[in-house]
Amino acid sequence: MKKQRQIPIKSYTPESGFIADYQRLVKETIIPYQYDVLHDRAEGAAKSHVVANFVNAGRKLAGLDVADGFYGMVFQDSDAAKWIEAAAYSLSIIPDEELEKQVDELIDLIEKAQDPNGYLNTYFTIKDEEKRWTNLLEGHELYCAGHMMEAACAYFEATGKDRLLRVMQRNAAHIYQVFIEQEHPGYPGHPEVELALMKMYRLTGDEKCLELARHFIDVRGVDKDYYREERAKRSWSVWGSDGEDDHYQQSSVPLREMKDVRGHAVRAVYLLTGMADVATETGDERLLQACRTMWDSICDRQLYITGGIGSTVHGEAFSVDYDLPSDTAYNETCASIGLMFFASRMLEYEMDSRYSDVMERAFYNTVLAGIQQDGRRFFYVNPLEVVPGISGIAKTHKHTLPQRPGWYDCACCPPNAARLISSIGKYAYSENHDTLFCHLYAAGVVKAENGMTVRCETTYPNSFDIRYTVTEGAGELAIRIPSWSISDFQIRSEAPYRMDKGYVYIHVRTGATVEIKLHDKPYLVYASNKVPKLTGQAALCYGPLVYCFEGKDNADDVLSLILRNDTLEQITYAKNAQLKDALCIALPAIRSVKNESTLYSMEKPVYTDCVAKAVPYYAWGNRGENQMRVWLPIR
Amino acid sequence: MKKQRQIPIKSYTPESGFIADYQRLVKETIIPYQYDVLHDRAEGAAKSHVVANFVNAGRKLAGLDVADGFYGMVFQDSDAAKWIEAAAYSLSIIPDEELEKQVDELIDLIEKAQDPNGYLNTYFTIKDEEKRWTNLLEGHELYCAGHMMEAACAYFEATGKDRLLRVMQRNAAHIYQVFIEQEHPGYPGHPEVELALMKMYRLTGDEKCLELARHFIDVRGVDKDYYREERAKRSWSVWGSDGEDDHYQQSSVPLREMKDVRGHAVRAVYLLTGMADVATETGDERLLQACRTMWDSICDRQLYITGGIGSTVHGEAFSVDYDLPSDTAYNETCASIGLMFFASRMLEYEMDSRYSDVMERAFYNTVLAGIQQDGRRFFYVNPLEVVPGISGIAKTHKHTLPQRPGWYDCACCPPNAARLISSIGKYAYSENHDTLFCHLYAAGVVKAENGMTVRCETTYPNSFDIRYTVTEGAGELAIRIPSWSISDFQIRSEAPYRMDKGYVYIHVRTGATVEIKLHDKPYLVYASNKVPKLTGQAALCYGPLVYCFEGKDNADDVLSLILRNDTLEQITYAKNAQLKDALCIALPAIRSVKNESTLYSMEKPVYTDCVAKAVPYYAWGNRGENQMRVWLPIR
Repeated sequence: MKKQRQIPIKSYTPESGFIADYQRLVKETIIPYQYDVLHDRAEGAAKSHVVANFVNAGRKLAGLDVADGFYGMVFQDSDAAKWIEAAAYSLSIIPDEELEKQVDELIDLIEKAQDPNGYLNTYFTIKDEEKRWTNLLEGHELYCAGHMMEAACAYFEATGKDRLLRVMQRNAAHIYQVFIEQEHPGYPGHPEVELALMKMYRLTGDEKCLELARHFIDVRGVDKDYYREERAKRSWSVWGSDGEDDHYQQSSVPLREMKDVRGHAVRAVYLLTGMADVATETGDERLLQACRTMWDSICDRQLYITGGIGSTVHGEAFSVDYDLPSDTAYNETCASIGLMFFASRMLEYEMDSRYSDVMERAFYNTVLAGIQQDGRRFFYVNPLEVVPGISGIAKTHKHTLPQRPGWYDCACCPPNAARLISSIGKYAYSENHDTLFCHLYAAGVVKAENGMTVRCETTYPNSFDIRYTVTEGAGELAIRIPSWSISDFQIRSEAPYRMDKGYVYIHVRTGATVEIKLHDKPYLVYASNKVPKLTGQAALCYGPLVYCFEGKDNADDVLSLILRNDTLEQITYAKNAQLKDALCIALPAIRSVKNESTLYSMEKPVYTDCVAKAVPYYAWGNRGENQMRVWLPIR
Repeated sequence: MKKQRQIPIKSYTPESGFIADYQRLVKETIIPYQYDVLHDRAEGAAKSHVVANFVNAGRKLAGLDVADGFYGMVFQDSDAAKWIEAAAYSLSIIPDEELEKQVDELIDLIEKAQDPNGYLNTYFTIKDEEKRWTNLLEGHELYCAGHMMEAACAYFEATGKDRLLRVMQRNAAHIYQVFIEQEHPGYPGHPEVELALMKMYRLTGDEKCLELARHFIDVRGVDKDYYREERAKRSWSVWGSDGEDDHYQQSSVPLREMKDVRGHAVRAVYLLTGMADVATETGDERLLQACRTMWDSICDRQLYITGGIGSTVHGEAFSVDYDLPSDTAYNETCASIGLMFFASRMLEYEMDSRYSDVMERAFYNTVLAGIQQDGRRFFYVNPLEVVPGISGIAKTHKHTLPQRPGWYDCACCPPNAARLISSIGKYAYSENHDTLFCHLYAAGVVKAENGMTVRCETTYPNSFDIRYTVTEGAGELAIRIPSWSISDFQIRSEAPYRMDKGYVYIHVRTGATVEIKLHDKPYLVYASNKVPKLTGQAALCYGPLVYCFEGKDNADDVLSLILRNDTLEQITYAKNAQLKDALCIALPAIRSVKNESTLYSMEKPVYTDCVAKAVPYYAWGNRGENQMRVWLPIR
């Protein structure tokens, strides 16, 4: 099969529907709010100083006074980058002169903050130039550079404007000089620059970007002691990291020899995304195989049903295989976004719905659950069970908050979700010269490189009928059939189709329509018995959506609910106006009634019939603090 | 009802049976091994320097050279104290001239290590006299003093020898001088001296001991900022404790106002034991009420079915109500021992089987599970679920080891279990002038203060028939009927009986026999639905024993086992020779069979019939590393 790629951002024009609603929320609420945050104008939010840092770095380079110095986290610059990236994608969907002007003004400041040698990082430029590149472990210089490269590529793609791209080309050239020509040792503490350099390479064709990305992948874990040695040479640190935790740092083995995913979850999937990029671009089979091994390690043994990854708060990290607690799950929103990146790149390696199924699972559940429906509050952590009184309070549960906190308690996830949602077309569709691949069902019009134009009409995931109409050109259409529908779907198409690894392939031409009808009944999912926390339980799903049970709908007590495996036929549905018309489900279930005066009792519970009500997981926590549970005991 | 007390140690003579076997294990294995450890002669164990510290403190006080100084933890002295206490109790059951000589030699060293002013602590005497009493938060001076007072009382009770008692009377007088006469502020970081002073008071009648114990209870939490202020005055610390965690320090409120148990579990129950002692001794109703409130807080909301307490590794502490995870449970062996202390004291306050039921539950399950059946390895932490690959490995599970480690990884629990088991007669029996109370079924002969002598014959907990014979004298016999048998027990007695709060009261005289037949069928226990971790599950119990399912008996897979609630009648029994003839149970159950190639599946598991085999929880982990689970899903 010929190589395929994500479509260019402007090739997809969303039309009204579930995804377009989220894109509007990003455009109308999240991007403007973050703009105010960056400029220290957001009411009620602590000052971010992000823009002020760029101003000050520019002043310092110009020899001017910088009285108030640098403020914020060492990776503060990346907030500006993610905002630009989100704004860029949004501009390509919904033009907005004012927003474009805001971006241009910010780019102006960024350009001024760039050292004449190409270096760009306000923390080290303002605070201490001598410390540049001496703390790869914690310094986030390459991380911030990577995000700004992504922003530059996105803004060029969206607007054709290349000023930021040129800034970042100079920056990439500087990094090349330092790490390749001057042979500076080491590799990024927080991977990100690898995948960003690959975006630069694909956009500009600059071989140095490819070489640099490959370099960071080649040396990582080979020079296993790099972080220890770097730490020993420094008299300072950012957070006191000692560089000793090879697993956490993803430096325990050369990357081509990795077997089990470990360490910081976001870093892991960002790294794997860059690895897959380099591998597909260079045909590096060993690297590709390592990516696949790591994919299996994540998805076969460490993935939550919601597409969440990184089960432990200790280091925001992967735990060990099958350790998937619901109540203490970390499941950072950004990690699921990174998993979508990785999945999208694995599709370039091999077209198989195992990747796109996970991409969809992560998107419709964990990523969207990260966002309050009003777009003003966000989950960083996404547990699968919340019990007020324990969650957010017990020492082991401090991180699992029963309600979304405001922006600044979780600064990285909101802009990350914003850029993902604005660019969802790139994850929904990919193409090669012959074929347009439809991974997600995103309503709108896609214009492929070969001229074929296809309209996708659907209200998915609120219904399961999808209609594709070819309005121009001809070619092959490849449409994913999700795993939950693989044994129950219908296709109406004049042309014949073939199936391969979860995709339906059909040759189409102008005027052709393809109608897909997916399995439209809720279903129960059971976990492997190897997951100790999920034995004897089941989860209710409907289409790509995982459902959960909230106290609000269940007499403030979801802990005594027990599912039955014989009541799916009796399900009723209702749109919930409080939850933006999310489709809610009611089904006959069992309530375990006990004498609750004692902690333990020999008295068998009385099992009474009841109706259990479920809402999509993405919509939980929008009606105040209450119990929530995804997995229920089943009888 | 007249006040009753634990019987004197020599009033109970054990006869062969379950408890006597454990006492022999303590006598023949644990006490000699610990003696070698104290003297740095134990093969394979790190040096403890316990005896060397006393020698060095004595040399320092005598103006001699102490080249090798102090070695070990700040509370190292308490190991000697606990050993003496265990040895003393053991001597009262099984006389042993050699052991008594060893104790006397150690007491000689202790006496020499006492400052002429009465102060006794090798750490501060050897290291820095100036620092005495300046770090109550971490220094453990009062803790070590308390344990040595307990040892002194025990050795006097067992042998009539008063040398150590006189040492500790001088020590108590010194502490009185410091904290009462000189008005030194503060209270012990690790409670223990309170209950020890009350033992001294009861043995010697010294009112100063009572006054001092009451003082520490009266000031605790009143001067809420004591630890913060103490820390601010010091330029040094032992472990860097900042004195800020009022809950952990049990100093958040005056003790009479406590509502919810929080903080370090062992410290909490030691403190509560001392509080109950002071309250019953002084008739302090508010303090008694606080003890009762705290009892309810523990037993109604934070107790494991195994009698374990302190569910979180964070600070070895109580978590919040109903947070009772099986797999990450901390449940320190010493905490359950302390809970038995507290229960025994609450019985002095009011005779009610709610206290003795918990005492029995803690003893037969968590305390005994702490000890390898060969007496050579010990659990400090007692989880209710172990899964090799996760337990002991995942960052959240580092503390839940699948196998008992050797002595020195958990130095406090083995000697604590040794002193408890050797003195179990005191927990099994108590008395007032009229009545002998039988709380636990401990085979042997008890001679009450009023001259009534009773023989208890039973193989409990391996059978449920208990026979009491009055061999001398007359009086009232009060025998606990456990809660699990309260609706199914038989009594054969010529004299009539009455029941009150779980106890059967019978007037007896010489020649009388009372035969009790308890419920002799295994039963299932269900937890309150308020415990999120236990919904949809049940535990199998038999008599006072909680049972568990181990991989060894269940095809190396207990995770796919599901209990049925209708198969208890079909249970079969077998003694397991590998487990010292522990009574094992087999019952029809269900095995959930799944296609395990995927983590999640829409495929309903196949539920096949199987036989599930259970062993007593106290005997788990004696056959190598394997899965273990107490709570199973139930259908």
